[in-house]
Amino acid sequence: MERHALCLDLGGTNLKGGIVSQKGELSKHRNLPAEVEQGPERILQNLIRMTDMLLKEAGKDSIPIEGIGVSTPGIIDTDFGGLTGGAVNLPGWQNTPFMKALYDEFHIPVFAHNDVTATALGEATYGAGVGRKHVVMASVGTGIGGGIIINGRLYEGATGYAGEIGHIVTFAGGHTCNCGVKGCWEEYAALRGILRTAQEHLDRDAKRESSIFSTLDQEGELTPRIVFDAAREGDHLALGIVDEIGRNTAVGLGSLINIFDPDMLIIGGGIAEAGDIYLNAIRTHIPSWSLPDSREGVEIVLAKLGSKAGIFGASALVFGDINRYMK
Amino acid sequence: MERHALCLDLGGTNLKGGIVSQKGELSKHRNLPAEVEQGPERILQNLIRMTDMLLKEAGKDSIPIEGIGVSTPGIIDTDFGGLTGGAVNLPGWQNTPFMKALYDEFHIPVFAHNDVTATALGEATYGAGVGRKHVVMASVGTGIGGGIIINGRLYEGATGYAGEIGHIVTFAGGHTCNCGVKGCWEEYAALRGILRTAQEHLDRDAKRESSIFSTLDQEGELTPRIVFDAAREGDHLALGIVDEIGRNTAVGLGSLINIFDPDMLIIGGGIAEAGDIYLNAIRTHIPSWSLPDSREGVEIVLAKLGSKAGIFGASALVFGDINRYMK
Repeated sequence: MERHALCLDLGGTNLKGGIVSQKGELSKHRNLPAEVEQGPERILQNLIRMTDMLLKEAGKDSIPIEGIGVSTPGIIDTDFGGLTGGAVNLPGWQNTPFMKALYDEFHIPVFAHNDVTATALGEATYGAGVGRKHVVMASVGTGIGGGIIINGRLYEGATGYAGEIGHIVTFAGGHTCNCGVKGCWEEYAALRGILRTAQEHLDRDAKRESSIFSTLDQEGELTPRIVFDAAREGDHLALGIVDEIGRNTAVGLGSLINIFDPDMLIIGGGIAEAGDIYLNAIRTHIPSWSLPDSREGVEIVLAKLGSKAGIFGASALVFGDINRYMK
Repeated sequence: MERHALCLDLGGTNLKGGIVSQKGELSKHRNLPAEVEQGPERILQNLIRMTDMLLKEAGKDSIPIEGIGVSTPGIIDTDFGGLTGGAVNLPGWQNTPFMKALYDEFHIPVFAHNDVTATALGEATYGAGVGRKHVVMASVGTGIGGGIIINGRLYEGATGYAGEIGHIVTFAGGHTCNCGVKGCWEEYAALRGILRTAQEHLDRDAKRESSIFSTLDQEGELTPRIVFDAAREGDHLALGIVDEIGRNTAVGLGSLINIFDPDMLIIGGGIAEAGDIYLNAIRTHIPSWSLPDSREGVEIVLAKLGSKAGIFGASALVFGDINRYMK
């Protein structure tokens, strides 16, 4: 009988759920509003409601569920059965022992992990990284989160904080990061850095010939999408911005290549939705920021699972017995 | 019966040898001139002579030798039984299948690894890192070599090139490193960076009150030792230089802390022989370049085994069955 996990992926907007087999087949995929603005009690009720619904559907098809996997913002404490920190966008969620609550309700082992970590694990196990031994995933969005897979297993460090790759200091002494350090990689290669880079290029363009200016007049606010869209249309200024984004991203990825000599680097997160134009800009600059011997065998690819990576990551927690809540 | 390894540590000047027990007891410690300037044939003869001598001594005491471990400059290829590259200071050594030659001569399994890696493994297993799970060692000398120990085992990456931590890009766009990349950590925190930093401080000191100037007049050439010695005497200019060395070193170590969340960071290599004044300068700056959660549990220490780390690392190759030459 194949193994199956019941998987939950809690985000700021949606709560996704589904059943995943160990082979990586997703079924019963469901999506509910997370209703995080209604407080932690309601979030927990929604987790329980989703679990109940999926368990009933699994029961109809006689699918045995060996564990509940949860991807959530924040840092997990399996003793407490909830978070020890993080999840600043989900007020009160820190103090809610949701793993304990799920276990008490359903009497099925519960596993949970940080969403960035779960996403990386999902991609490495069921997405772009299938079959690879050593994988580093960078999730580029507001910041840069990381997931490190070594010998096919999640590497978490001595105290569970490993993988803070957004805080590699690549531009020492430069712009101050949210963490307080001057020159973290994510301050240059993630959202804030991309917008700063774009604004600098716009400010220097006295002729205002770029299509970005007219789009900005319509949309009001600069976004990475506007820049990537314009670049795809061949807009000269946009292409220059994307090139610099590629460079700033390659600086950190090159360092990761030199440190890890991985089989594969996976780039995911909201920014990576820009697709090939983003990936190609990065690849162009990798040789300038890494050692030839180290980069030779590394594939650099985009994440494949999209919004389902968290669900698949949650299943990998169950099948890999990672972060089990001990009653 | 306790396990024993016959260990060889080939350097540019000396060939060291000894017998190491699995508990980490070193006996029969010997030192010969490596005579690398006389070519690869002579180096190999010396390895064989040292091995023969140690085997005879082990035989007298009825110590069974289960393997020969070799620490050498360069990158090992266990199929060839020698190096695939590196070891630029040992001309011809690349083309000498010394592992095969030792096996053919003594019919004992032969294990070998790069000297930086072996040193890190020695320190992690028998030196400063005893009992730690996740250890990163930085060997600071002409460059910065690295050794990464994860779950008590050497991490080598997909193609054996992992651990090139000297080439984390910490000052992107800055001084050009030997590898061609602009802003590698080692270009700032290793020998060239230390001398550049010192020279910049000296050039700015119009009054020439520092004791470094008089020492320079006597010795002719600026070295890290002169700077550290003066700082230990309270020389104001030297203290400023050491502070900046500490900062430049902490930038990269802080990044490693954020990535690995290790139990321990070990700092070794020639520069680390400066001792506590160097370590304290680094520790002072670590909080400015790392995340509080990640650095909290990390011990930052100096290497303990000194010039014997290579010998102990060679024994860890044997006991850990790492890089065995397959006849």
